Amino acid sequence: MKVDGRSYRTLWPTGDGRAIEVIDQTLLPHSFATRRIGDLDSAVVAIKTMVVRGAPLIGAAGAYGLALALRDAADDASLERAHGALLASRPTAVNLRWALDDVRARVAPLAPRARADAAWTRAAEICDEDVALNRRIGEAGLPLIEAAHRAHGRVINVLTHCNAGWLATVDWGTATAPIYLAHDRGVPVHVFVDETRPRNQGAALTAYELGQHGVPHTLIADNAGGHLMQHGQIDLCIVGADRITARGDAANKIGTYLKALASRANHVPFYVAAPHTTIDWTIESGLEIEIEERSADEVTHITGRLDDGGIARVALAPPGTRAVNPAFDVTPAELIDAFITDRGLCPATKPALAALFERGQS
Amino acid sequence: MKVDGRSYRTLWPTGDGRAIEVIDQTLLPHSFATRRIGDLDSAVVAIKTMVVRGAPLIGAAGAYGLALALRDAADDASLERAHGALLASRPTAVNLRWALDDVRARVAPLAPRARADAAWTRAAEICDEDVALNRRIGEAGLPLIEAAHRAHGRVINVLTHCNAGWLATVDWGTATAPIYLAHDRGVPVHVFVDETRPRNQGAALTAYELGQHGVPHTLIADNAGGHLMQHGQIDLCIVGADRITARGDAANKIGTYLKALASRANHVPFYVAAPHTTIDWTIESGLEIEIEERSADEVTHITGRLDDGGIARVALAPPGTRAVNPAFDVTPAELIDAFITDRGLCPATKPALAALFERGQS
Repeated sequence: MKVDGRSYRTLWPTGDGRAIEVIDQTLLPHSFATRRIGDLDSAVVAIKTMVVRGAPLIGAAGAYGLALALRDAADDASLERAHGALLASRPTAVNLRWALDDVRARVAPLAPRARADAAWTRAAEICDEDVALNRRIGEAGLPLIEAAHRAHGRVINVLTHCNAGWLATVDWGTATAPIYLAHDRGVPVHVFVDETRPRNQGAALTAYELGQHGVPHTLIADNAGGHLMQHGQIDLCIVGADRITARGDAANKIGTYLKALASRANHVPFYVAAPHTTIDWTIESGLEIEIEERSADEVTHITGRLDDGGIARVALAPPGTRAVNPAFDVTPAELIDAFITDRGLCPATKPALAALFERGQS
Repeated sequence: MKVDGRSYRTLWPTGDGRAIEVIDQTLLPHSFATRRIGDLDSAVVAIKTMVVRGAPLIGAAGAYGLALALRDAADDASLERAHGALLASRPTAVNLRWALDDVRARVAPLAPRARADAAWTRAAEICDEDVALNRRIGEAGLPLIEAAHRAHGRVINVLTHCNAGWLATVDWGTATAPIYLAHDRGVPVHVFVDETRPRNQGAALTAYELGQHGVPHTLIADNAGGHLMQHGQIDLCIVGADRITARGDAANKIGTYLKALASRANHVPFYVAAPHTTIDWTIESGLEIEIEERSADEVTHITGRLDDGGIARVALAPPGTRAVNPAFDVTPAELIDAFITDRGLCPATKPALAALFERGQS
């Protein structure tokens, strides 16, 4: 997608092929800068400090990190050490483990001198696969926006929560893929962006990426979505998912569930966009999912840009205020109109999800 | 209620009877200071700049402001001028108009030299009436918390939104009155406080006043309440209301509706606490209520306390981001289990509300 009129991915190999370059997401939305990652240590730091974030992007960065490590030392022990160091940089990121295991399995049988190049090639493939996958999500979701446009004959208003955008992936994003595709093809679309407290990924990242790509959008407090739906101002909701259970419950950023309830009450279709690999067949009900409890500081404090351009963190509550900060909530399958996946649209039911999975196995 | 261990109202006459003193709410929660208001101009400024805020408190401050004005000039023209100046300080505040009209009607028939004292006496009565009214709301709601405590035999968890607390009134608050009463009588109660974006009255005011009075509480992002309800962590919700329609729809701070939806979906009782005067018989459905649209800045920027104790305003979104900021939403009567009023509990139906009103007329 575009930044300052130029097309970017979130991560790309440098011209000399000795490093990768990434968009430093810790600086967004206040400034745009890229960072060169030339060795294992800088890859680990970039993942740990959230210079790169979003499950698919972390996976891609991890794969390249392993390739960079193998440039410096490619014996079996070094391969294991690099794999371990990268995995430990964000231990709960499922895509990171998948990408690291995938690269390791492909290079381990090779002679050490062949490993770095093979890993580099595979990392590039992982990036391209992510781009293609998200684009397929876009193709699957586009008809929903097109149909709404045909039905209403005006700009279609989509509400999204958090950042399931291209900044969380290598390109296109998940929830945003149908939106970007619609916009690029001239279907008039406008996005209501939930600011997404407490970490404000909507205000900081989704508003930024939509704005840079030229997609009309309006920022709202998370509290406002229900009111907008009551007044017919939202045509459909599209959100991402961190995990989808066998019966079709979806864990996503905290607050998603409230929007799903409001959607149902106001007859606004509610869609969850995610790769089919997000389905966790080992869990039946979403209420079994253990929800990450994050730091209270994220609720009591917030970081932003001062008038002079400096960055400051301010406290919002009385000193010593106790806060709890669950990071995700679970939207039950019953509130989800469909999943938008790289394998097409899919109702949020166990048989439908199983059929989707079968298609992949055949 | 208490601040630093000492009992306060939000407004009180000074010892010399020549002025009132108020808690400066623009400084909360970062510092506590009171401000002396000795004439009409300072009363107008205090209301306009939200040194005092909350409908009942603005009404009380307005009444005293009129009395102070009459100390300086009590002829008919001065009375009208002062009434007009105070009314213009917060033109949409219904309680302010009511209090100003009430004081004017009582003093207008008197000789000018008797007006200031009569207005002062009436302003004091308005304050006492507000305290008594909120206390009756507390008495009406207390049995709900007591019953939950008897049923569960543990601390009762109440969720509230925004600040319908004592800081918005002269004392007790509306939504908080049953909570303070329960706490003071030894019924174990804990409050989940919605931070209430975009103006953060929950984090800034409700967390402050509960903390100062010693009521256990936990701050949460507005996004978290649905998740907590899914996991049985909320026993009941109590919120305030800005307006209640004839059929029982309730307009309250933006985001209230989302909590009402989650309450219903999770079998958590949802109560709206308000004086019976909040009912607007001229409006049937809440969707007829025109919702105030506030400045986009409140969504894109936030003010807080720096580490050095200074106060700063930071931007959260990319420069130039468009935002919309509806200040209230409407919770339909169907989602409200009961109103907690100064005349007792009342189901959210037109006949029940009409009966409540009749009781007042007889």
